Amino acid sequence: MARKASLSGFPEYLPAERLVENHVLDTLRTTFELHGFSSIETRSVETIEQLLRKGEIDKEVYAISRLQDDNGTKAKEKLALHFDLTVPFARYVVENAGYLNFPFSRYQIQKVWRGERPQEGRAREFTQADIDVVGDGELPFRYDVTLALVVVDALSKLPIPDFKLRVNNRKLAEGFYLGLGLTDTAAVLRSIDKLEKIGADAVAQELQREAGASEEQAQAALELAQIRTEDSSFVAQVRELAERYEAEHELLDQGVAELAEVIDEAARRAPGKVLADLSIARGLDYYTGTVYETVLVGHESLGSICSGGRYESLASNGKKTYPGVGLSIGVTRLVARILSQGFAQATRKVPSAVFIALTNEEGWSAANDVADALRARGIACEVSANAAKFGKQIKYAEKRGIPFVWFISTGDNGELAHEVKDIRSGEQVAADPASWMPPGEDLNVRVVPAESIGS
Amino acid sequence: MARKASLSGFPEYLPAERLVENHVLDTLRTTFELHGFSSIETRSVETIEQLLRKGEIDKEVYAISRLQDDNGTKAKEKLALHFDLTVPFARYVVENAGYLNFPFSRYQIQKVWRGERPQEGRAREFTQADIDVVGDGELPFRYDVTLALVVVDALSKLPIPDFKLRVNNRKLAEGFYLGLGLTDTAAVLRSIDKLEKIGADAVAQELQREAGASEEQAQAALELAQIRTEDSSFVAQVRELAERYEAEHELLDQGVAELAEVIDEAARRAPGKVLADLSIARGLDYYTGTVYETVLVGHESLGSICSGGRYESLASNGKKTYPGVGLSIGVTRLVARILSQGFAQATRKVPSAVFIALTNEEGWSAANDVADALRARGIACEVSANAAKFGKQIKYAEKRGIPFVWFISTGDNGELAHEVKDIRSGEQVAADPASWMPPGEDLNVRVVPAESIGS
Repeated sequence: MARKASLSGFPEYLPAERLVENHVLDTLRTTFELHGFSSIETRSVETIEQLLRKGEIDKEVYAISRLQDDNGTKAKEKLALHFDLTVPFARYVVENAGYLNFPFSRYQIQKVWRGERPQEGRAREFTQADIDVVGDGELPFRYDVTLALVVVDALSKLPIPDFKLRVNNRKLAEGFYLGLGLTDTAAVLRSIDKLEKIGADAVAQELQREAGASEEQAQAALELAQIRTEDSSFVAQVRELAERYEAEHELLDQGVAELAEVIDEAARRAPGKVLADLSIARGLDYYTGTVYETVLVGHESLGSICSGGRYESLASNGKKTYPGVGLSIGVTRLVARILSQGFAQATRKVPSAVFIALTNEEGWSAANDVADALRARGIACEVSANAAKFGKQIKYAEKRGIPFVWFISTGDNGELAHEVKDIRSGEQVAADPASWMPPGEDLNVRVVPAESIGS
Repeated sequence: MARKASLSGFPEYLPAERLVENHVLDTLRTTFELHGFSSIETRSVETIEQLLRKGEIDKEVYAISRLQDDNGTKAKEKLALHFDLTVPFARYVVENAGYLNFPFSRYQIQKVWRGERPQEGRAREFTQADIDVVGDGELPFRYDVTLALVVVDALSKLPIPDFKLRVNNRKLAEGFYLGLGLTDTAAVLRSIDKLEKIGADAVAQELQREAGASEEQAQAALELAQIRTEDSSFVAQVRELAERYEAEHELLDQGVAELAEVIDEAARRAPGKVLADLSIARGLDYYTGTVYETVLVGHESLGSICSGGRYESLASNGKKTYPGVGLSIGVTRLVARILSQGFAQATRKVPSAVFIALTNEEGWSAANDVADALRARGIACEVSANAAKFGKQIKYAEKRGIPFVWFISTGDNGELAHEVKDIRSGEQVAADPASWMPPGEDLNVRVVPAESIGS
């Protein structure tokens, strides 16, 4: 399993690993649909103009061009692979607004590409699973609560260790900074975003250097970022801090109320999974309210496995504004960790529950009759391609983890007799192709958590 | 639904259309797995060198490059998006041979890209669903039969008109040409491939001009290409023709026997779906035996919706050869036709079966309790984001085709009372969140054939 990708940053899985990935993808999809989210897919390419609209990431973009481009495409129309699913979704919403029902809840599970230096948890081609709700002109705040609960539900069903969804609110942070008298709130956020990476002292210095903060203001911003609670007790802590530093601001009150609404409902519905964490800044992203980040407990170095937030204006066509709130799960990052740590594995390597052996070459068509009968009841199976010795045929099944081998023999009266053998126990019994079923746990290949996950 | 893609050749679907596409994708996946095929995905990019190994398609390839490529990548290592799933699969097999069990049966459903001029049935970004079986050194011929039956099973489950899988065999055709004395069999195949497009007279002329055929040889080749039978009666017709033109060849006999094996079993298992069609040439592709093509009856102009064949050497690492046989379904081409012709549609626009209305703003959390209870039994649902007038909330459900609206009221005793309304019939009944189920046909959004499809 510890194979190296033949192209760095472009992971590929073996069939048994792909079963784990598919399990993750299916679980996410099913959960999103249970919560009423519609599936969409956008094209893999956008115009470069569209992708770079918000700047700062041009190095990471993969441009595409036809090998023999006769006309010389104008720079504006040049295409590149999308680097996330938010920019394409925003374009899709504006283009199709007349055909969509708002608020529009969609999920989108697709590959994205970034030309970054590959490292553990960071690939050049990877899969994201996004959920967003977007409104036409307005979007009730309650969706900020709902979205957090949807991803908690989805992540809870995956074979991963405990996780914490950390929530903050830009209005709260910005209101506090403004109340302190720090007007370059973006610079403050950018510095606070580095807290985990460079530590409090370095952030304090940077706040003074880059954001024009006094020592006391820097201290206040850092104290705010240290607040972390599993219930709405953060409210009292923020209040105390705001009073002490005389940092009152309308935006702060609004942010505190919003964050409390998320945390209160989450504490009720998903205790221990969601925390108010006032260090969460999501530095370069253009969020305007709630911000989310998620870490796997014990795997914090992996970085966030699910992030997002609220946009005042996710999309706009000049006349209309579409506010949105959403989260993006880093599927490839999660699956890579599940595989490298052995958190889960497939119960067998192939879909087949049954391998139908051949007694002689003439029996192939009759074996296919059995296969059709089993498939009609949802039992995945394969027919042997030749009448090799039974030992060899059983070996075929064993290698792949197929639990049952089916044998057909012709009785003295010319009628076919059927037996099926559980090759794990060796037990062999008579079976009717029209009614036999494997035990429920053998019907489909399943992905099961490794014991080690109970940590 | 007649929207224009905002980027020509890069189709995008509305949510209700995407439900149809997902139905097609799910049906294919389920069927492939029932037949024991394993899922794999390969990266979207290959080195240009790898992609152009077989030449002739350089114009169609989309190269990718980082917008700011500091080092100047060597031409050899330059990357491009894959234009099919066969080339990547061949590479994958060679790279992972030590980890795979042969014969290895895999399916692969992914996007591919070609820089061709977009037209109906031809996009620049589209989805293919491939199945292949690949052997290590050898691969029993029976897989050529099996693969045809797997795609017939898969296509039969889709909401499409009748289809015909047309099968031919390169050995049969080449053996016949060689028996005739035509040694440039590739040139003959290329001409015969144009039969449907340019007609018999033009092909006859081209055979004489390009393949060095006499008038009689051209006539013979054309007569062979006109043979088309739903059972193995083609064998007698080929024999008669070979005798008449004195075109005997060992390869011909082998090809006839192979094709008869496919057609005999197919006629038995899937009568009327598979024909021997001796005009099928698959001109530029490197097949060495069986070749397949599939047309939708009445939609022949759409081109083949499922093609493939047998490769003596699907992959090779110099020392070892991996023969394979496979077929590729043009999912995007099929889905575009299903949508443009209205062959099928989703029973509603969203996954939700139930919309939980709010009686007052305070009821939101209780409404989420109901939603959780329903979801625990697999019922997709949404909670209203606010306590607008019931008429407005019902309109929300109606617009999306959500069949049920759930109402919660507080009785005099303070206990919650639940009712659910079928907004199609207007019928409203008391319901228990812990046990209520919608009728089976309403539980999940379904994709149903339009009546017009019964042609």
